[in-house]
Amino acid sequence: MNVYFGQKLAHAKSRRQDPFCFERLVPSASWIVKAWEASEDQICAAGGLDALVFIRLIVFSIRIFSIAATICISLVLPLNYYGHDMEHKVIPSESLEVFSIANVQKGSKRLWAPCLALYVISCCTCALLYHEYKSITKLRLLHITEALSNPSHFTVLVRGIPSSQTESYSETVAKFFSTYYASSYLSHKMVYQSGTVQKLMSDAGKMYKMLKTCTREQQCGPNLMRCGLCGGTTSSFKMLAIESQNDKGRSDSDAADLRRKECGAAFVFFRTRYAALVAAQSLQSQNPMKWVTERAPDPKDVYWTNLGLPYRILWIRRIAIFVVSILFVAFFLVPVTLTQSLVNLDKLQNTFPFLKGILKRKFMSQLATGYLPSVILMLFLYMAPPLMLFFSTMEGAVSRSGRKLSACIKLLYFMIWNVFFANILTGTIIKNLVGEVARRLQDPKNIPNELATAIPTTATFFMTYILTSGWASLSFEILQPLALICNLFYRYALRNKDESTYGTWTFPYHTEIPRVILFGVMGFTCSIMAPLILPFLLVYFFLAYLVYRNQILNVYVTKYQTGGLYWPTVHNATIFSLVLTQIIASGVFGIKKSTVASSFTFPLIILTLLFNEYCRQRFLPVFKRNAAKVLIEMDWQDEQSGIMEETHQKLQSAYCQLTLTTLHQDATLHEHPGETVASGLQDLENLDSGKTQTSGLWAGHSSPEIKELHAM
Amino acid sequence: MNVYFGQKLAHAKSRRQDPFCFERLVPSASWIVKAWEASEDQICAAGGLDALVFIRLIVFSIRIFSIAATICISLVLPLNYYGHDMEHKVIPSESLEVFSIANVQKGSKRLWAPCLALYVISCCTCALLYHEYKSITKLRLLHITEALSNPSHFTVLVRGIPSSQTESYSETVAKFFSTYYASSYLSHKMVYQSGTVQKLMSDAGKMYKMLKTCTREQQCGPNLMRCGLCGGTTSSFKMLAIESQNDKGRSDSDAADLRRKECGAAFVFFRTRYAALVAAQSLQSQNPMKWVTERAPDPKDVYWTNLGLPYRILWIRRIAIFVVSILFVAFFLVPVTLTQSLVNLDKLQNTFPFLKGILKRKFMSQLATGYLPSVILMLFLYMAPPLMLFFSTMEGAVSRSGRKLSACIKLLYFMIWNVFFANILTGTIIKNLVGEVARRLQDPKNIPNELATAIPTTATFFMTYILTSGWASLSFEILQPLALICNLFYRYALRNKDESTYGTWTFPYHTEIPRVILFGVMGFTCSIMAPLILPFLLVYFFLAYLVYRNQILNVYVTKYQTGGLYWPTVHNATIFSLVLTQIIASGVFGIKKSTVASSFTFPLIILTLLFNEYCRQRFLPVFKRNAAKVLIEMDWQDEQSGIMEETHQKLQSAYCQLTLTTLHQDATLHEHPGETVASGLQDLENLDSGKTQTSGLWAGHSSPEIKELHAM
Repeated sequence: MNVYFGQKLAHAKSRRQDPFCFERLVPSASWIVKAWEASEDQICAAGGLDALVFIRLIVFSIRIFSIAATICISLVLPLNYYGHDMEHKVIPSESLEVFSIANVQKGSKRLWAPCLALYVISCCTCALLYHEYKSITKLRLLHITEALSNPSHFTVLVRGIPSSQTESYSETVAKFFSTYYASSYLSHKMVYQSGTVQKLMSDAGKMYKMLKTCTREQQCGPNLMRCGLCGGTTSSFKMLAIESQNDKGRSDSDAADLRRKECGAAFVFFRTRYAALVAAQSLQSQNPMKWVTERAPDPKDVYWTNLGLPYRILWIRRIAIFVVSILFVAFFLVPVTLTQSLVNLDKLQNTFPFLKGILKRKFMSQLATGYLPSVILMLFLYMAPPLMLFFSTMEGAVSRSGRKLSACIKLLYFMIWNVFFANILTGTIIKNLVGEVARRLQDPKNIPNELATAIPTTATFFMTYILTSGWASLSFEILQPLALICNLFYRYALRNKDESTYGTWTFPYHTEIPRVILFGVMGFTCSIMAPLILPFLLVYFFLAYLVYRNQILNVYVTKYQTGGLYWPTVHNATIFSLVLTQIIASGVFGIKKSTVASSFTFPLIILTLLFNEYCRQRFLPVFKRNAAKVLIEMDWQDEQSGIMEETHQKLQSAYCQLTLTTLHQDATLHEHPGETVASGLQDLENLDSGKTQTSGLWAGHSSPEIKELHAM
Repeated sequence: MNVYFGQKLAHAKSRRQDPFCFERLVPSASWIVKAWEASEDQICAAGGLDALVFIRLIVFSIRIFSIAATICISLVLPLNYYGHDMEHKVIPSESLEVFSIANVQKGSKRLWAPCLALYVISCCTCALLYHEYKSITKLRLLHITEALSNPSHFTVLVRGIPSSQTESYSETVAKFFSTYYASSYLSHKMVYQSGTVQKLMSDAGKMYKMLKTCTREQQCGPNLMRCGLCGGTTSSFKMLAIESQNDKGRSDSDAADLRRKECGAAFVFFRTRYAALVAAQSLQSQNPMKWVTERAPDPKDVYWTNLGLPYRILWIRRIAIFVVSILFVAFFLVPVTLTQSLVNLDKLQNTFPFLKGILKRKFMSQLATGYLPSVILMLFLYMAPPLMLFFSTMEGAVSRSGRKLSACIKLLYFMIWNVFFANILTGTIIKNLVGEVARRLQDPKNIPNELATAIPTTATFFMTYILTSGWASLSFEILQPLALICNLFYRYALRNKDESTYGTWTFPYHTEIPRVILFGVMGFTCSIMAPLILPFLLVYFFLAYLVYRNQILNVYVTKYQTGGLYWPTVHNATIFSLVLTQIIASGVFGIKKSTVASSFTFPLIILTLLFNEYCRQRFLPVFKRNAAKVLIEMDWQDEQSGIMEETHQKLQSAYCQLTLTTLHQDATLHEHPGETVASGLQDLENLDSGKTQTSGLWAGHSSPEIKELHAM
């Protein structure tokens, strides 16, 4: 239940009164109707702008491939089919290559048809892309203007605060901003360290105290697991808050301790949105490595553990991760092939003797030898998304959404290289000798020709890929086996009846967007060469449309979003695949000795690139920076309605290394422990503002663990 | 006189009392002493920060090549010389290759020496580069803070002002900035069109009126030329100002006319430097193609003709010029070789029959056949700088200094590709067959090896290049034949005795910096392979040091500067040549079968690139953006000393499409015509500020021509 309706459950817990009604057990297709009927506003409300961008990507794909399918199947396919003067068999028994451009004779006059189709597809793609970019830019601006109470607009993330012998970081920040931004500076909030060793130690301490509390309060159930893993978050809090209230005498040493834990990073709050924008954009000091400011992410979006990293080493991390990612993407297939060659049936039989009986049957043996390599490939492929997410974390992303976006881009390169190009190359390598291909590939001019010969032949493979991987991934998505298993494990192995700690998966944009784009790349490149792929692709996109809408509406919970930042990536990828198609087409026309058609595609390539450049000039800056005019107008609106003061008061509590908001969501449990925590927090804020009274130190400590438990 | 002491003449015209004293006719070397003794402050005062950067580049080259010469000649050279077990002749009769690394045996244990030398040179280069970058960053900050009355700090250049049916551009600007920047907006100044056809028409009109004025006022001398070409600038002005004062009745139609001539660009003035900085950095509106703001260049630095270009087409121009520049750089040698093959002696003799007699002598014929190709090459090479400057103009640079900087970067690529790499490649091509080289170059891994075999052999050519081109360019620079001829032409052909219209050449950074860097690239790459080049290079740099210091102190006039923006280019080029050296060295070590030395160079390459990245992070942002802290402190300083008001009043007159400042310099001529012009200007300013009274329209028109005459 909470696997498939996580979204609804998170929003409306109280409505679930009747745990067993008959309707729930009847399989129904009503979700399809609901997914179909949902409006864009509903999607946007449920999944944010990112979800809308994703749905738009699918709609865009459906539109463009409908056009491509119409023109290619009505015009290009018959010409391909009758390309050779040959006798045709009955269509179902025909080889698939007959439908591809490989069937057209050299020097054929009929090549105007694919050339025309290419022109039509390119023009339609550009027109649609322009339309989409424009509309999403508008939506992004709306997304910004509508979020009037968004605290991130008032906030600037400062890193590289210079350390001083006499002052704490907090004092340095207060001094700097009250000097140079006297009229607009409001207050600030330091970021505290959360080292791993420290975390382990405090974990141990907490565990001990938690057990003590459990036995004392007799609240703990019969099984230890539940207390330690899930209930612990709240009861430990309660205890900590009580403890910190008990011994106020320790506050002096605590304050010094807390200061030592301050990082060279802080959130600085400003009076107006415009002031924050200005502060975020400027180069603050003569040393560009000090006082580095940037727009703060949304409070729920902040990736706290990365904020503590010293700014001066971030560039090294970024370079290292860049190099590692490139190596990973480029040489991913090497370990895969090695493992495939190492793990063969004989070795498996030796390691696991019980397999011997099964594998003696010829059918099973064939199945295993046939599927083992692809199973290994799939296992390695499933490793890629978490690894890319890990890379993006190591890069030092300050927000969760930024981390996902960065992983998305990395995975996009990964998929296009390792699925699209690797298949084409291996297909070519099998046909020719390895050495000859390597030699021919060295000449950059040959690459379009190589691709042109390879694409029509690998189109069959792509078709099966769409049929298997594409459709399978959709059913995987709708069935959520992993989430189901995890949930069952939670429920029955850990005997955790509390559903609220679970069901908070966010939409995996970093895996889904690259997948959909990859199918787009296949569709574009094959559209003219082998138009038969298009119907299969269209079916995939239609199914994806329904499935993902349902998933966004019902399954995933939107905790953070980039605000449409995925679109520029999608746009660039589409332009890339369009240009690739044009290059391949010109190569094919070259091979077919049609210089006219080949030379007709060159202006198309240039025009497409110019169009891309125009879009980059016209729309991209809005995705990178906020427009001053918009924010100034929002400030006016706030001042007129008088809610500015209210927003200012909320700022301090919004950015909080303790995830207060999550605690509030869970506030139904255990007599509202959030309140006691909040009192501890208040003290922490006082300290930040330059006062010395402190308590609730432990509460400050335990924050990262609690967050992690909640994010699990 | 005004060729060689343009700088001094421009500054102190009054001091030149005695036109003929004996000392001036005695050749003396005192300029060397003076150039040697001048301090950095003097250089900076005479030539600005750019001149200092250029001198620093030469000093840096002297330092690093002194170190390289010491270590390479004491350590590497003897090892190269005794690399083979061979009998050595007397040193002077030895071939030059004996001193290069080509003489070392394969697998020799002595390769630790060049490897060590490479380490020492790399470390010293990085240390020196860091030191220089740091010091120039400091100087740039000083350059900004010291220019308290610099109007460009208060000014923002706005382009892409949206056109409106009801309002003029000027009203739109006033409305926008007084709405969104109410507290800091001061005033603005529109940019007016200066189309070519318009210019020709007004030219013709002016010429007619000028002649009328000349005959009327009887001021004109016996020759028409002087009046039309030089005196015209001032007398036409006078007439125009008088005319415009005469018929004030026309002012209404003039105002409408002037509005029609308004461009979608304006200079907007702000109350504080910080406000201007903020406005320049922000994205103003939701449409990134409208209200595009950037830092305004210095008033004297503004390139007015480019300001009138509509912003929305600039990106196309930029792309077009980018493509054209790449094509020009890459295929420059093709037309050169074609011309060389077409223009041979036989054809010349047919075209110019008088040559036949001369060329019959064998000596002359040999000279001609030997030198003709290189003369053609030189002619083509001299075409490059003006062409690159033209490219940079077409790109739409808004400042003269920016145009020169852009041309400098283009010429740098041009020189490194067409002089450095082309020579190496042609050297290799001569040795091997063309086809084989092309095939071998296709493999990227082979390139270091190709370079490694080519460099030691082409070192001899580089040595002669430094001896001929380098030293010749210095004597060319010190003798200024072109300027001398122009000056003589002005004086005697045009009988122009007035020296003030002449002698205002600015330092040609766009040709000199690439040249010095090119010698640096040669020095670095040859230092380890063929150390014999280093002494010649050192002599060149020493001479250059003296010559250029003299030129900066005495010859060139500094009208505008970039404020040290050349240094990042110099830094990047040096890092490029260092990495190139390391790659070539690792290739050489590979060829000599010393895997240890070859693998030792790889960490060096990585470390150098990391060092470059660090410098990019640490210093580059200061060259791109002004630090908020610095400008805020300058604002405070101004407020305390109370000169803010004064500066505000100066702003309006500072940015003026008529070059008022130049007119003021020439104010000794013809009863101060600058004043009448200034009155016309005042009216123009009133119009800008929203009032309607106008006159002096013609004065507004004639500005570009006047400017051009002065810049000639």
